[in-house]
Amino acid sequence: MDNQPIVWRGDHVVIIDQTRLPRDEVYLKLADYRAIAAAIKELKIRGAPAIGIAGAYAVALGAQAIRTADAGAFRKELAAVIDFIAATRPTARNLFRALERLKKAAAVAGSVASIKKKLSDEAIAIHREETAATEAISRLGAELIPAGATVLTHCNAGPLATTGAGTALGVIIAAHRQGKQVRVLADETRPLLQGSRLTAWELKQAGVPVNLITDSMAGYFMKAGKVTCVITGADRIARNGDTANKIGTYTLAVLARENKVPFYIAAPTSTIDPSLTTGDKIPIEERNPQEVTHLQGVPIAPAGVVAANPAFDVTPHRYITAIITEKGVVRPPYGAGIKGILEG
Amino acid sequence: MDNQPIVWRGDHVVIIDQTRLPRDEVYLKLADYRAIAAAIKELKIRGAPAIGIAGAYAVALGAQAIRTADAGAFRKELAAVIDFIAATRPTARNLFRALERLKKAAAVAGSVASIKKKLSDEAIAIHREETAATEAISRLGAELIPAGATVLTHCNAGPLATTGAGTALGVIIAAHRQGKQVRVLADETRPLLQGSRLTAWELKQAGVPVNLITDSMAGYFMKAGKVTCVITGADRIARNGDTANKIGTYTLAVLARENKVPFYIAAPTSTIDPSLTTGDKIPIEERNPQEVTHLQGVPIAPAGVVAANPAFDVTPHRYITAIITEKGVVRPPYGAGIKGILEG
Repeated sequence: MDNQPIVWRGDHVVIIDQTRLPRDEVYLKLADYRAIAAAIKELKIRGAPAIGIAGAYAVALGAQAIRTADAGAFRKELAAVIDFIAATRPTARNLFRALERLKKAAAVAGSVASIKKKLSDEAIAIHREETAATEAISRLGAELIPAGATVLTHCNAGPLATTGAGTALGVIIAAHRQGKQVRVLADETRPLLQGSRLTAWELKQAGVPVNLITDSMAGYFMKAGKVTCVITGADRIARNGDTANKIGTYTLAVLARENKVPFYIAAPTSTIDPSLTTGDKIPIEERNPQEVTHLQGVPIAPAGVVAANPAFDVTPHRYITAIITEKGVVRPPYGAGIKGILEG
Repeated sequence: MDNQPIVWRGDHVVIIDQTRLPRDEVYLKLADYRAIAAAIKELKIRGAPAIGIAGAYAVALGAQAIRTADAGAFRKELAAVIDFIAATRPTARNLFRALERLKKAAAVAGSVASIKKKLSDEAIAIHREETAATEAISRLGAELIPAGATVLTHCNAGPLATTGAGTALGVIIAAHRQGKQVRVLADETRPLLQGSRLTAWELKQAGVPVNLITDSMAGYFMKAGKVTCVITGADRIARNGDTANKIGTYTLAVLARENKVPFYIAAPTSTIDPSLTTGDKIPIEERNPQEVTHLQGVPIAPAGVVAANPAFDVTPHRYITAIITEKGVVRPPYGAGIKGILEG
């Protein structure tokens, strides 16, 4: 399976259970849209582009399972399927963009069978486009990485999160393959440790030297002059460049500016939300406090202690040096640059 | 035992094993200076003031065990004991200050028996002074906490770290007892989770409402306007106010200034190192990488991944709103203020 986060099999998908990595490589066959929705909620599949792709396949499978041949009744059931999938995770734009594309694909005249085919085709197209986007992002982003760089990253924006090459990790791995002798400082990324479990694992597989640190150490290394640049993925980008990403990203951006370290976002244009003028309205998912008070099911805090668990934060655009998309590297002022990318 | 981190019994000390808290309350009877040194290294007793006190009692016990009645031979053996204890942990000033006081106490003329007695008396005096300092710090610091405040803290600077009332937590608990309706956001403080294990536990016991967060969430809550002030303890303070404290403290200070949130250090004057003009020369302890890659013995990162583990960072004085000591609250310019405190 080559660690592909999601593979389409016509009447089901196969995903790798990312909650079990790196200890266990468990593949799950999911033939029902509800099962895919549950896998998204439980982070078995995660990363903004990957959940967009998974959501698209979930709709295609949900449509296949609708029994009516009446187009009106079909559309009604399909809308319920789409709403169900939309209710999984609120922050990543890619999921909602995928669902919009599928709605549009279903909105043309035709038989139920032909609409079902259109939905599968569109999901496959989304998957193919997201994969291709990571290749372009990696190539464009690698130009920004100087030889000998130490790159700090947060959470996981590698192949598992995106399919293809990855976004932030795609850039790093591309620079590595160009012989640039890059090294990585990987934030472990509490609470769910995507940095230690997934990023360190993917970088090791790619042969990129990686040092794992706790999230609280990033500032120490930046202040010591040991970080060349910071690069992360994104879950949703507003039209002005404000960017939602894994909790802790805002902190890195503030530390980077304070220490004159370039701070890059790497994300496909499917992560941009053209309906939002700023990041203030990006919905921030609040997850189960047990993710903070327990680790792999084991309590790590006193019984009864209350925890907060916002899963994302928003980095204002003024902290971001550049946003690397498959259509080009956007620099401030972001309003004009993002408009150009979306219309280009 | 009332959760006292260390109790002197004349020919041994009893400590509570802080690595086992909050799950297990295990008390250890330590009659040998080497056992105390090991407990300091392994963080069974921790917190800058507490390890100063533990180090002082270790010297007193080490002196008791020296068998010679010859003052010259005694002094030579005593110096080896002191060197052994000094080699436990490099960053906290309080340990070295305690050892300097004991050296001075031993440097007067007299019989070996009288010097042994002097060393015990001096260790008891250090313990009593540190305890008294926390009461004064708590009282002075509480004046800085407005009613209804949400106070963010990092690591643990409560009774366990200090004896007595605590420094940062002493301030918070004093404000709480004044009826100020304070709430606390407690950073869990990776890698060793002193925030969730010890701070949340001590605040619960004191009846102070506490919300546990991962270290990466502090910026999110500051940016959202939900933090009134930040207060932490300290491990070593240079003459210009630069302050070493648990890794992650520098990050909080940068975030606090960026969000116009006051950032306070609470520490006894025994934490000030008059030999250092700035914080650049403060030795930073690098601890076992397994503390990052494992949690309570369980691996949480892929096998073979390399981790860094600096245990402290240095916050430049320009980020610090005030330093709360038992002799008064020092504000910028710190050079003059700290000089005044040390000479006062």
